[in-house]
Amino acid sequence: MTIPRSASVEIIAVGSELLTPHRQDTNSLFLTARLNDLGYAVRFKTVVGDETAGLALRLGEALEQVALVILIGGLGPTEDDKTRSAVARALGRRLVFRPDILKTIEERFRNRQVRMTSPNRRQAYIVEGAAVLPNANGTAPGQWVRAGSKTVVLLPGPPHELKAMFDKSVAPRLERRRAGFIARRALMTTGLGESALESLISGLYPKAGGGLDLTILASPGQVELHVVSHSRVSRKLAEKKADGLAARLRSRLSEHIYSDRGESLEESLARLLRDRKMTVAVAESCTGGFLGHRLTAVPGSSAYFLGGFIVYSDALKTGLLGVPQELIQSAGAVSSEVAEAMAAGTLSRTGSDFALAVTGIAGPGGGSPEKPVGLVWIALAWRGGVDVRKSLFWGRRELVKFQSAQKAMDMLRRHLLQPEAAGNRDVT
Amino acid sequence: MTIPRSASVEIIAVGSELLTPHRQDTNSLFLTARLNDLGYAVRFKTVVGDETAGLALRLGEALEQVALVILIGGLGPTEDDKTRSAVARALGRRLVFRPDILKTIEERFRNRQVRMTSPNRRQAYIVEGAAVLPNANGTAPGQWVRAGSKTVVLLPGPPHELKAMFDKSVAPRLERRRAGFIARRALMTTGLGESALESLISGLYPKAGGGLDLTILASPGQVELHVVSHSRVSRKLAEKKADGLAARLRSRLSEHIYSDRGESLEESLARLLRDRKMTVAVAESCTGGFLGHRLTAVPGSSAYFLGGFIVYSDALKTGLLGVPQELIQSAGAVSSEVAEAMAAGTLSRTGSDFALAVTGIAGPGGGSPEKPVGLVWIALAWRGGVDVRKSLFWGRRELVKFQSAQKAMDMLRRHLLQPEAAGNRDVT
Repeated sequence: MTIPRSASVEIIAVGSELLTPHRQDTNSLFLTARLNDLGYAVRFKTVVGDETAGLALRLGEALEQVALVILIGGLGPTEDDKTRSAVARALGRRLVFRPDILKTIEERFRNRQVRMTSPNRRQAYIVEGAAVLPNANGTAPGQWVRAGSKTVVLLPGPPHELKAMFDKSVAPRLERRRAGFIARRALMTTGLGESALESLISGLYPKAGGGLDLTILASPGQVELHVVSHSRVSRKLAEKKADGLAARLRSRLSEHIYSDRGESLEESLARLLRDRKMTVAVAESCTGGFLGHRLTAVPGSSAYFLGGFIVYSDALKTGLLGVPQELIQSAGAVSSEVAEAMAAGTLSRTGSDFALAVTGIAGPGGGSPEKPVGLVWIALAWRGGVDVRKSLFWGRRELVKFQSAQKAMDMLRRHLLQPEAAGNRDVT
Repeated sequence: MTIPRSASVEIIAVGSELLTPHRQDTNSLFLTARLNDLGYAVRFKTVVGDETAGLALRLGEALEQVALVILIGGLGPTEDDKTRSAVARALGRRLVFRPDILKTIEERFRNRQVRMTSPNRRQAYIVEGAAVLPNANGTAPGQWVRAGSKTVVLLPGPPHELKAMFDKSVAPRLERRRAGFIARRALMTTGLGESALESLISGLYPKAGGGLDLTILASPGQVELHVVSHSRVSRKLAEKKADGLAARLRSRLSEHIYSDRGESLEESLARLLRDRKMTVAVAESCTGGFLGHRLTAVPGSSAYFLGGFIVYSDALKTGLLGVPQELIQSAGAVSSEVAEAMAAGTLSRTGSDFALAVTGIAGPGGGSPEKPVGLVWIALAWRGGVDVRKSLFWGRRELVKFQSAQKAMDMLRRHLLQPEAAGNRDVT
């Protein structure tokens, strides 16, 4: 998609800790989403340590290429915080002491009954000519600096400070000079591999230059389709284009799409269960609790999730769920029969409307030629029926657990979408 | 820490998808760890889209500042893959077709019985003068390009290709000209807040200039102390310095440190349980399965983890674990009494040596002035005793779940470290 240079952005995250193996900038993901919504595109992202020279240099280079540079972090009260002086140096301006800012900071400390230490004075300096962006959640104010046709924005590093400041003070300023309108749709699918999905939607890729883009992001157990459209005229036009392509994709992919607004699978499933006032319980072997964890990641999940069993050992499969010991010996713990017995045991012991049972080999050990690592049996049981599926998942332990939980939730989701399914009796 | 310019690095990740809100470069974290071990320090990290002009420009700027530039990605077979041509442009060199590379690629396709499509030919071009770095896991070879005193390295984007290539072909080349030796120690703590920890270790911060650094990374439920030392002389000297500081920190923090080699809490706990041949089971309310998920994240966890109960609803607390209904009504589901009863019920029903029970309010809803969001009761029970603790955790739903699991595992860990604790009877 071609975005004019007047709408191009570089995001510079400042902080030596972001140059270690242990920390990563994530603020730029939030900023990118918001900037895209406002019609801006990020052309470069950079991380620079706490060093005035490198930062001033990089800012100078960025201003040669883009219209807007956003600096994140380095506004704290200590000597390590170099952003203010680096911006002043790059723009050839002075730093100006602002007593009114110091007063605000002092008041903040007083209200919290904390004694201010003298270094906080540093935070009262701004780049000559900058507009001050108030910080509702911290002491360091942000700054909005015009330099010819370019703009430099200084934002604090803590995410809750940055987000509030961007939405309150930066977005409205950018809105006034927006270069266009961008609309996004995120279609979430599971149960189809990337190549199978691509062949289903062949011919739907938009032509270049029409202000419409389709990007496919595939990961094990999930394929996302991201539609982005751009209009210089209006938000409505951008949304119409995006909705048009989203509708064509939906007509090809139908029930494979679990959300067209970027929700997680557990959120989509939550909606279906809530609407039907139905409940689910789980019995987990190889997922070890991960399926329950996913289901309870949604606030208010107690409305449809009762709980269940983690039966990692075979003794507990028998002791807690009544899976016959002989069945485990004859069919094996990872088998269709045991998955089904686990689901049936869960249904009767919890009184839930649905039970999901997972048994498999997460690896790296425990595999055999007949039952390799990645083999997982999943059973969905309800009063009057059961559905058992075999999967062979690829990847490391945590990926096998993820794909297993994904598949289990998707089995229940697809079941609930069938008009004749249990759970729809009272609805249609 | 001062690292000479000859050991300074910029990492440039290439790919327009890395400039969206949905994807993030993570290869640079792996590369940073490896580079640090080799005595190199990352000075800048940059993300550039699939555009030759921007990439060539950024590479030129990087070469002005650092000794080594590593480019990640953009080596695929399609028109989107611009890294080769951008490097050629920045260095003023030609791209050279290498029939031997094409042959290797063709063989790879033949072996996998896949027909090669013509675009793969692109991958057989190298920058004039470059050394070819073989790709054991993919078609795109890497490249090692000398340019005066500077070096440019091109690596493929898929992590398993990049990692294998770095370790096999890049690390040995860097080793030969290493600028120094770096040693790292990661001391992992839980159960102490950042400021409490800082006051315990006051006076231990190393002075600047001695080639020894201490960084504290605090997040809810975990504080990590990273020791990094640098020596121009030998690895041994670097390690001695790092071990010296680590020992001084350990003498102050003792049992608050659960690992001095960067392990996760579940890995440390796994070792303690394995050594003692003891087992654990869980009863989870507000964590919803997350504690079991953490415990089973360690390969081979079936040696010490039996399983347990997810009792999200009060009915299941009574039905599965025998928590008296009257107790839930009088004391409340989130109470010391119910946590203790959950742990006792788990112990008797699973036959484990230890039981961990968690009941709390993960939020955002469900809080009250007496029992606010973040209130969590955790019980550890064993044959002959029980320990119940109250916590008030701060943060969003997933953070409350994380801190609860962290605290539960830490209670068991500290218990196992007591000389007189259950579990140590046969050991001492």
